[in-house]
Amino acid sequence: QKTSRSELMGASPGNTGAAPPRLPFSRVTQEDLAFFRALLPGRTITDPDLLKSSNVDWLKTVEGNSEVLLRPKTTEEVSQILRHCNERNLAVCPQGGNTGLVGGSVPVFDEIILSTSLMSQVITFDNISGILTCQAGCVLENLSNYLEERGFIMPLDLGAKGSCHIGGNVSTNAGGLRLLRYGSLRGTVLGLEVVLADGRILNCLATLRKDNTGYDLKQLFIGSEGTLGVITAVSILCPHKPKAVNVAFLGCSSFQQLLETFQRCRGMLGEILSAFEFLDASCMSLLEKHLKLTNPITESPFYIVIETAGSNATHDEEKLHKFLEEVMTSSLVTDGTVATEATKIKALWSLRERVTEALTHEGYTYKYDISLPVEKIYDLVQDMRGHLGDMAKNVVGYGHVGDGNLHLNITSPSKDPALLAAIEPYVYEWTSEWKGSISAEHGLGLKKRNYIYYSKPSEAVALMGSIKAMLDPKGILNPYKTLPDNIH
Amino acid sequence: QKTSRSELMGASPGNTGAAPPRLPFSRVTQEDLAFFRALLPGRTITDPDLLKSSNVDWLKTVEGNSEVLLRPKTTEEVSQILRHCNERNLAVCPQGGNTGLVGGSVPVFDEIILSTSLMSQVITFDNISGILTCQAGCVLENLSNYLEERGFIMPLDLGAKGSCHIGGNVSTNAGGLRLLRYGSLRGTVLGLEVVLADGRILNCLATLRKDNTGYDLKQLFIGSEGTLGVITAVSILCPHKPKAVNVAFLGCSSFQQLLETFQRCRGMLGEILSAFEFLDASCMSLLEKHLKLTNPITESPFYIVIETAGSNATHDEEKLHKFLEEVMTSSLVTDGTVATEATKIKALWSLRERVTEALTHEGYTYKYDISLPVEKIYDLVQDMRGHLGDMAKNVVGYGHVGDGNLHLNITSPSKDPALLAAIEPYVYEWTSEWKGSISAEHGLGLKKRNYIYYSKPSEAVALMGSIKAMLDPKGILNPYKTLPDNIH
Repeated sequence: QKTSRSELMGASPGNTGAAPPRLPFSRVTQEDLAFFRALLPGRTITDPDLLKSSNVDWLKTVEGNSEVLLRPKTTEEVSQILRHCNERNLAVCPQGGNTGLVGGSVPVFDEIILSTSLMSQVITFDNISGILTCQAGCVLENLSNYLEERGFIMPLDLGAKGSCHIGGNVSTNAGGLRLLRYGSLRGTVLGLEVVLADGRILNCLATLRKDNTGYDLKQLFIGSEGTLGVITAVSILCPHKPKAVNVAFLGCSSFQQLLETFQRCRGMLGEILSAFEFLDASCMSLLEKHLKLTNPITESPFYIVIETAGSNATHDEEKLHKFLEEVMTSSLVTDGTVATEATKIKALWSLRERVTEALTHEGYTYKYDISLPVEKIYDLVQDMRGHLGDMAKNVVGYGHVGDGNLHLNITSPSKDPALLAAIEPYVYEWTSEWKGSISAEHGLGLKKRNYIYYSKPSEAVALMGSIKAMLDPKGILNPYKTLPDNIH
Repeated sequence: QKTSRSELMGASPGNTGAAPPRLPFSRVTQEDLAFFRALLPGRTITDPDLLKSSNVDWLKTVEGNSEVLLRPKTTEEVSQILRHCNERNLAVCPQGGNTGLVGGSVPVFDEIILSTSLMSQVITFDNISGILTCQAGCVLENLSNYLEERGFIMPLDLGAKGSCHIGGNVSTNAGGLRLLRYGSLRGTVLGLEVVLADGRILNCLATLRKDNTGYDLKQLFIGSEGTLGVITAVSILCPHKPKAVNVAFLGCSSFQQLLETFQRCRGMLGEILSAFEFLDASCMSLLEKHLKLTNPITESPFYIVIETAGSNATHDEEKLHKFLEEVMTSSLVTDGTVATEATKIKALWSLRERVTEALTHEGYTYKYDISLPVEKIYDLVQDMRGHLGDMAKNVVGYGHVGDGNLHLNITSPSKDPALLAAIEPYVYEWTSEWKGSISAEHGLGLKKRNYIYYSKPSEAVALMGSIKAMLDPKGILNPYKTLPDNIH
């Protein structure tokens, strides 16, 4: 089966981010620009300086050469843009906050960038049901603040919240820090408005918890990274703001003890457990070195962030203290600190949330976002350290224990083809061997598109190609992303 | 817009269950039977007596004339059956426990019945992650029992649990009694194995909580009622069995007070609230009359079933008692009883779960399964009573307050076209006016297929038609179901 997989990939191992040849889309003409300027006066950007930050991804690992950035404000404008582009065979790269990690949100060649940054209005919020409807370009943190004032929270939270757009979150089926408690966007997103490749507006913006009338079309657009349509509005079910939140930051001397702590935690904290995250000692060193953060407990090989969120502070603290007593007494946990006050909670969370940022100061980072059976997640990190030896500057692991999701990061002073060839396809073969996913939450984008066969059978990938052909026959939407090069 | 909707429906109002003309599928020949008998010796049923119960739905409102019932045991057998049927242009009706309420699980004419009843094996269960993988024909209650022995529960529960199959639950995106707490199957189903119309096996049977590698194909088969493929195996994330369960059965004197009780309940029970269900006084009368059940509290216009499920019995009881004290003191609730012991819990739940059964003793029941903003759900019942006057024997309402899901049932001594004409399209217009769903959890099946336009725009329905054409170009899978007659 491995042979056929390599054949299907049609690409040499180690080509992370390598672009395929440009597909025969049209080039933007003066007539096209005139059309866009008439439709979006002052919001059709062609100044190369202003385009620069939209052409390159947050990690600065993928850079395109788009000459046009469009900033629509309404769904109708998005519809007219796409209708025009489809007729003219112009490729389009939809872009939200541009915080993706797999090169999915930037152009590869000269695709027109369609930004949702001016689509940032809340449309409605119902404070009985907790259902929020908003435009796709709302920044996640702004929505969080809006909701907190009203006694609710967003069902997702992630490190990039200050920049990422809800439309991008939905397009990439973002996971993040609250998935353990509130589930994935596939359950919490109740409705979407989407503009299809040919400009048709698909209004599935329902605000109902249950609706079994026909096929659930919105699911096609969740996680398809803008390749099937452009999400213009989202309705989402938001939980009540918990009355009590506690965060514990703990140290463990082995990953085995960390796993046992997780098992006890699930039993004893049960329904109030809202996050169980980890980072290893290498991550802590990077936080201290590059971001000058302080380790609040004694040094340990592993650190855990546990969050509880509940409706009764007394009950929650009682549960948490009982749990901490048990894991300290049984020596599963070597040291720890607990926060109940907002500033201290934020400080503890930043130790987990800012690892990605700390890594960017290390030079070049090869990033892997792997799902595995939870017992196996750290074996991959250790195995990779042995496998790479001195070739890598750092091999670090952190992530969401509760979801079986490891972020494996390998750093190097600069891009290093020999190192890359040692990592890939090794890391994918390893993951595939344990029936894991080679992209748990980051998506495939440009960088991982050709590795899809490690996690999906060829019949499934072929069917994805049929869906793409049905919804976007000319392939203008976010080309070179998500689907492998042998499928168009 | 109403005009265009009626035009699109292409059917006169009030045609619930009325079948369209038979489509030009082939008839089953002796050669076909020989093929099936060779493939499924002793499991190719043609005896009309044995076929009888599979030809008629549970409500006995829809009856087909199938002459062949096939009972495969393996995915490979399902694949061979469908490959043959597709080549021969033979229509197929997939059937699980045949407990559906919209005529989706029985043949309309002579479709071959493909039953999952012998596909009832548990494949794997991982008691660290709580992930169960099983064949599609497992009975929900058997899975529940299997899991309870291992300290877990199924994330869904419904009245039909003793007969319904998990494959049918997934195919219809069944909601049920635990949705409020554990969310919909779109979040808890982690993987599916599906046989497509042409016999291809699509193996998306992942057991990962997170996997963002390409489009989430399994979502196409959840809730599409067997029209896009036959689900042969399911993997599903199962929650830990709660350590403490409490059920309260309460009486309210108005629906307004019931809603206020719901709001207080969400605030005070928070994360331990696992169900908030209601039934009205008419339902209680039917339970007493037909099933000889006893009302455990004083007579009230409305009854509530509240369930809590948590990890700490003391904390849960404290929260529940505080809540009950508050709603009794403020006269929101007039009387109530609480159960913590399994037998009494079951008895209280049966008052809610057996309403459907009690209704079958009333003669003919017109059933509606409506999602609305929660404040509006009982207005529809009262409005309908006024609208129908003496024409209806009984107009009753019950359902899932927590999900905004009303089960509206209208009874009559026998089928009554005049009554039906008074109900439909009135009930659908009313629902559409409030942007509700005309099928919250039951699906569309045969009975509701032409009413899809009341809840979905025509662009969406057209796209559903394209998906159907892509996956089942000959339309052999469960014809006359889900999609309206103007779409094939």
